[in-house]
Amino acid sequence: MSKELKIGVIGASGYTGIELCTILKRHPNVELKFATSRKYSGESLSSLAPEAPDIRISHTDEVTYDGVDLVFLCLPHAASAEKAVSALEAGVKVIDLSADFRLKSAADYAEWYGRAHPAPDKMRDAVYGLTELNRDKVRGCSLLANPGCYPTSILLPLYPVLRKRDDVVSPIIADSKSGATGAGRKAKIGNLFVEVQENFHAYKIGKHRHLPEITEQMNERAVVDQRIIFTPHLLPVRRGILSTIYVSFSGEVEEAEMREAFDSVYGKERFVHLMREGESPTLKHVVHTNSCYVGITVVGKTVVLTSAIDNLVKGAAGQAVQNMNVMYEMEEGTGLRSRPWNS
Amino acid sequence: MSKELKIGVIGASGYTGIELCTILKRHPNVELKFATSRKYSGESLSSLAPEAPDIRISHTDEVTYDGVDLVFLCLPHAASAEKAVSALEAGVKVIDLSADFRLKSAADYAEWYGRAHPAPDKMRDAVYGLTELNRDKVRGCSLLANPGCYPTSILLPLYPVLRKRDDVVSPIIADSKSGATGAGRKAKIGNLFVEVQENFHAYKIGKHRHLPEITEQMNERAVVDQRIIFTPHLLPVRRGILSTIYVSFSGEVEEAEMREAFDSVYGKERFVHLMREGESPTLKHVVHTNSCYVGITVVGKTVVLTSAIDNLVKGAAGQAVQNMNVMYEMEEGTGLRSRPWNS
Amino acid sequence: MSKELKIGVIGASGYTGIELCTILKRHPNVELKFATSRKYSGESLSSLAPEAPDIRISHTDEVTYDGVDLVFLCLPHAASAEKAVSALEAGVKVIDLSADFRLKSAADYAEWYGRAHPAPDKMRDAVYGLTELNRDKVRGCSLLANPGCYPTSILLPLYPVLRKRDDVVSPIIADSKSGATGAGRKAKIGNLFVEVQENFHAYKIGKHRHLPEITEQMNERAVVDQRIIFTPHLLPVRRGILSTIYVSFSGEVEEAEMREAFDSVYGKERFVHLMREGESPTLKHVVHTNSCYVGITVVGKTVVLTSAIDNLVKGAAGQAVQNMNVMYEMEEGTGLRSRPWNS
Amino acid sequence: MSKELKIGVIGASGYTGIELCTILKRHPNVELKFATSRKYSGESLSSLAPEAPDIRISHTDEVTYDGVDLVFLCLPHAASAEKAVSALEAGVKVIDLSADFRLKSAADYAEWYGRAHPAPDKMRDAVYGLTELNRDKVRGCSLLANPGCYPTSILLPLYPVLRKRDDVVSPIIADSKSGATGAGRKAKIGNLFVEVQENFHAYKIGKHRHLPEITEQMNERAVVDQRIIFTPHLLPVRRGILSTIYVSFSGEVEEAEMREAFDSVYGKERFVHLMREGESPTLKHVVHTNSCYVGITVVGKTVVLTSAIDNLVKGAAGQAVQNMNVMYEMEEGTGLRSRPWNS
Repeated sequence: MSKELKIGVIGASGYTGIELCTILKRHPNVELKFATSRKYSGESLSSLAPEAPDIRISHTDEVTYDGVDLVFLCLPHAASAEKAVSALEAGVKVIDLSADFRLKSAADYAEWYGRAHPAPDKMRDAVYGLTELNRDKVRGCSLLANPGCYPTSILLPLYPVLRKRDDVVSPIIADSKSGATGAGRKAKIGNLFVEVQENFHAYKIGKHRHLPEITEQMNERAVVDQRIIFTPHLLPVRRGILSTIYVSFSGEVEEAEMREAFDSVYGKERFVHLMREGESPTLKHVVHTNSCYVGITVVGKTVVLTSAIDNLVKGAAGQAVQNMNVMYEMEEGTGLRSRPWNS
Repeated sequence: MSKELKIGVIGASGYTGIELCTILKRHPNVELKFATSRKYSGESLSSLAPEAPDIRISHTDEVTYDGVDLVFLCLPHAASAEKAVSALEAGVKVIDLSADFRLKSAADYAEWYGRAHPAPDKMRDAVYGLTELNRDKVRGCSLLANPGCYPTSILLPLYPVLRKRDDVVSPIIADSKSGATGAGRKAKIGNLFVEVQENFHAYKIGKHRHLPEITEQMNERAVVDQRIIFTPHLLPVRRGILSTIYVSFSGEVEEAEMREAFDSVYGKERFVHLMREGESPTLKHVVHTNSCYVGITVVGKTVVLTSAIDNLVKGAAGQAVQNMNVMYEMEEGTGLRSRPWNS
Repeated sequence: MSKELKIGVIGASGYTGIELCTILKRHPNVELKFATSRKYSGESLSSLAPEAPDIRISHTDEVTYDGVDLVFLCLPHAASAEKAVSALEAGVKVIDLSADFRLKSAADYAEWYGRAHPAPDKMRDAVYGLTELNRDKVRGCSLLANPGCYPTSILLPLYPVLRKRDDVVSPIIADSKSGATGAGRKAKIGNLFVEVQENFHAYKIGKHRHLPEITEQMNERAVVDQRIIFTPHLLPVRRGILSTIYVSFSGEVEEAEMREAFDSVYGKERFVHLMREGESPTLKHVVHTNSCYVGITVVGKTVVLTSAIDNLVKGAAGQAVQNMNVMYEMEEGTGLRSRPWNS
Repeated sequence: MSKELKIGVIGASGYTGIELCTILKRHPNVELKFATSRKYSGESLSSLAPEAPDIRISHTDEVTYDGVDLVFLCLPHAASAEKAVSALEAGVKVIDLSADFRLKSAADYAEWYGRAHPAPDKMRDAVYGLTELNRDKVRGCSLLANPGCYPTSILLPLYPVLRKRDDVVSPIIADSKSGATGAGRKAKIGNLFVEVQENFHAYKIGKHRHLPEITEQMNERAVVDQRIIFTPHLLPVRRGILSTIYVSFSGEVEEAEMREAFDSVYGKERFVHLMREGESPTLKHVVHTNSCYVGITVVGKTVVLTSAIDNLVKGAAGQAVQNMNVMYEMEEGTGLRSRPWNS
C-alpha cells in the first residue's frame, strides 16, 4: 500500500501529540498533512522535543480538511468535541484522544467535567477504541473515542475475570501508578523535576475523571455490575503505568482458571501478554511499545492482577494508531512495536 | 543528663546500620561504644557513606559487652537471634532490628524463614516495638523486636479502624511502595541504578515475609480477626514507603467517624500525623524524619488510607531509637525529627 | 543569647527562600518576624513545600520594618536593589541573595543585566559575602551581597591556587554542573520532570551572568589577573553543584604544594574541607550542609580542582546565615551543619 | 540481500552485549548464530533485560566457529585478545569491543592494563574503528578495534579542530560525563541505585584507561601533537555521554572557521550532526541512536565543544554494527537509527 492515507494531528504539542506524530512519521502507509498547535505554530516539533521528527507546526485555526481522510484530536476536553463535530461535518473521520466521547451518558459527562457536553447527540455514535475488546465496532467507524491511559491499563486485565465470574466481592480495587508524562506537558509547579524526583503520592482518590470511564466500560462487559475503587499515584518516572488490581471472590478461585480465562480472550493478541506464573511485569517490559503485560497471582480467594503499559503508547498515541490501522484495514501492528527491540 | 547510656551497634554497614549510627551520634544522652561489621572492620563508617559520621568500624566477633547497656542488632535473621541470646545472657539489653523476634509463633517463623527459630523460648518474651501502640510494654523490656518497615506503615493507620469496626469485608488490601534502600545495601543486579531507574514493579505478591508479621500484629489489636492481602512494589527513589490501604465495610462509613477514631488514638502523638481532609501524604513529608503521615478518604463504603514513612527512620533506625528512649525513660523524641526542619 | 535578633525574609516562596526560612526557624538566636511573597501571601510555607516549617506568608508590600534588625532579600534582580535601598533607609541591615550588589562595576551590571543599576551609589558599599575570604569586612557591614552558587563553588577552591602562583596559562576552565533547584521554583517547560530526568546538557556557554562575578572576585584576589571560561550544565538531581576546575601552569607543579596552599587558607575552617589524596568529593558529601568539599589532583602541569557544595545552602541560604552570624558576632556555625549528621 | 552474514556475539550478558544483540536482531542482513555467556548460559537474554529479544544464551566455551563469518567480542580485556586470536586463526573476522586492540603500543598497554599484551603482534594489524575517520581501513579489515565510549565522544568533535589549527595552547581539556550503563552490568556497591541517584562525582582523574587511547588517536590526526587532560564523571542517568571539550589557541579564532572545519569533515555524514549557533546538544538528542551531536561555541580564544552520544550505541554496539556494515559493504546505516524516531 502506498502512502495513501492523509492524516492531520490537531494539538500536536503535548506529550501525546508529540508521540503520535513520531509514530505516524514512521508509519509506512500514511502521509502526515499537518500537525497543529496554537502556541507553537511556525516552530518545528523537534524544537519542542529533541527526540521528535522535524515537522513544521501549523496553526490550529488555519488548517483545512481538504484532502484529509482522518484527523487525530489531542485537545483538552470540550475543545475536542467541537473540533470533532466540524471535522465529521466535513466528511473527515475522527480519532479523539480527549475524554469527550468516552462516556455514553451526558449526565455523567456533565457531573465529572463540570459542563454540558458540547455535542451530546454524537456521544452514542462514538466507538470506544479499546481495540482488543471492540475490534468489530472500530472497523469502519467514523468517530472513535480513544481510551484513557488508566482505563486501558485496568480494563484489559480485568475483562477476562469479570466475564467469567459473577461472585465478585465488591468493590474491586485498582491501585494505579503513572509516570509524569501522564500529567501532561504543562508548566506547573507540581510537574517540576524538583517536586517529582524522590517523591511519590496518591492524588484525586475516588475523584479522578477516569473513574466513570472505567466503571461504564467495565460494566458493559461484566456478567454482573461491579463497583471499583480507583486510586492514581504519581511515579517519578517519565513513562509507564503499572496498575495493581484486586478482585476478591466469595467462592474459591484457582490461578489456572484465571490464566485460562485470560488466554481465551488474548491468546492470539500481539499486544497483550501474560507473564509466566510467579512473575509480574515491570515498566521496562512496555516502555516505547504498544503492549500490555499482565501478571496473575491468586492469594486466598483474591486474584491480584498487575498490568503494565506505556501511558503514551498503548495508553494514548499507540492505541490510536492501532485503531486507525483497524479502521482502514491495514495490518493492525503497522508502525507499532510489540516489544522494544522488534521495531 | 550526661552521656550515660553505653551503646553498641552490631551490623553497622547496611543502610539501616548507617542510619542508626548517624542518629545515635546526634543523640545527646548516649555514647556509642562500638559499631561493628565483619566485612568493613577497620574502616570508617564515612568511607561507606559520605553522609555518615566518622566512626571506626570494629569487627563483629571482636567486641565485648563490658560496660555496655544496650546493643542494637542489624544482622540478617537467625544470626541476629544468636547474638541476641548471648547479649541477654551477658546482661545487656537488646533492640533487634531483624525479623527474628517479631513473630510470636515458632511455627510461623519456620514456615516463612525456612528454618527452625534459633531461640524459640525467647520469642514470647520479646516486645514488639510499634512504639505508639505498645509503649507500656516497651518501657522496661529487655528484648525489643523492632517492627519491619512495611508493617509500621500499614499497622499504624490500620489500627484505629480495626479497633472501631467489626464489619470489615474481607480481605483488607495493602498496596505498598518502597524506595530502594528497603532492598538493602547489597551488590546484586536487581539493585543497580540502571535496573531501578525509570522502572517500577510489584514483587513477592502474597509471599513477602512481612505478611505474617502484619497479620499477627493486626489481629492482636482488631476487634475481629481479619485477612490482609499485601503487595510490595519497588519505587525508583532512595527512601520512603507509601502504603495505600483499602478497608471495605458492609455497613455505612463516614469520613468524620474514621478521623475521630484516628484522633482518639494518635491525637497526642508527636510522630503520627493526620492530613487534612482531601489531602494525602507524600514522601517529602516524611523523608529523614521519624514521622508517619496518614491520609483518610472514604469512597462509598470503603476507607482508603494512605500512609507515608521513611523506611530507614520510622521504619527501622528511628523507631529503634524511639524505643530506646522509652526503655530508658528519656524524652521520647530525643535525637529524632518529627519534621525535616525541626532538628 | 535569647532570641534577640529580629529578622524578615522578603521573597520566601522560591527554593532559596524556603531553605532560608527553614534554617532560620532552627536558629536558636533569631526570631523570624515575617516571610513574604506576593503570590502566596496568606498561605503557609509548608503548603508550598511539605518539608518547610509552618509559617504564614505575609504580603511583600504589606510588611513594615518596625522592630526588625535585618532583612534577607530573595527577590529577582533590580527588584532586590530597590527593596535594599528602602530597608537601609529605614535603618535595617540587608543581606541580599540576588545578584544586585555582587558586582562593583555599574557598567558590567548594565551589560550583563540589560538595564542600569537601580542604586549604583550603593554598589561600592556592599560587602561580597564569601565568608571565609571576606570575614573582616562582613563583620559589621550593613549591606551584604551574598555570593552566587556557581561563584561560591569556584572561588573557594581557586583562591589558594591563584594567590600562590603567577604563572597560570590562560584561560582557567570552570566546568560546573548544578542540580535543578538552581533553576528556581519556576513553572516552565525546561524545568519539568519529564524534561530533566535522564537528560543532561550545557547552557549559556560563556554567557552566564555569574561569569562577571567570578572574574571580578577572582581577580580581586589573584596575584596576576586571569581569564576564566565558565560552562554551567543542568544535572538531573535536586540539589548540589560540582565544579571541575582546570588551572594549567607554565612551570612545574606539585600536588603537595597545592595542598599546602589550600591548608594555609582553610586549615582552620569548619565549612571548607580538603579530600584526601586520590579522592574527590561527591554531592552526597555536601547536600543539606553548608560545607564545601574540595579535591586536588595534579596531572602534568595542570591542577584539577573538584568542588562540591549544596547550591541552596553554602551556595545561597546557608552562607547568608553564616554571614548573619558573623555580622552579629554569633558563633559562625550556629544553625548550620558542616556535615549531614551533625545537626 | 538475504540474511547471508552469519554472526556470533561472545560475551552477551553485559549492557553492551545486550544492546548489540538487540540491534543485530533488528538487522535485516545478518543471522545471529549464537550469543554467549559463561554465567547465564541456558537462559534467555530477555530474562536478563525485559527489553532484549528472546535469544537463548550459549556457553562461551561451547560454541564453534563453523559457518560463522564474524564474531563480536564483548569480553573483559586480555580475555578478549585471546578469543580474537583463536577466531582469526579459524578464519573468522573479529570486531572487538574491548580495549585490547585499540592501542598501537604494547608498552602503553602494559603500563595502563597492568600486564603484557596477550597478542602483541596483532596490535598493529587491528584497525581502529572510529568509522567516520577511518572508513577506508575499516572496509575489508579482519580485526577491528571498536573505540571506547569516551574516546568516541571526544575524538569526533576534536578532529576537525586539530587538523586545522597548529596553535593550540596545551593542554586540551576534556570534561566528560557518562550515564551508569558505562560502569557496566556489575553487581558492586558503587553502581547501586541508592548510591548513584541524586549523586554526581568525578573519578579516575588523569588515570582513566581511555586516556592513552584518546591521546594516541588524537595525535595520529592532529597537525601538531597535543596533550589532553581527561576527567570522567558519573551521571545519574542510564545512558548517554556528554563531553565538554576546551581548546584554547594562541591566535584568534572565529566560530565560523570552526563550523566550516566541522562541515568539511562531517557535512555528508548521517551520524554526526552540528547544532545550530547558540545551541548545544542534550542527551535526549542521542539516546537510543547511533548519532553524535556537537555544539561549537567560541569564547575569547577558546573553542568550547559539547558532544553527545549514547554510550551503548555510538559509543559501543551501534558503532560496532556500523563498522560491520562498512566491512561487508552493506548500507552503512542498516539496523541503526540516526534519530530516535526514524527507525
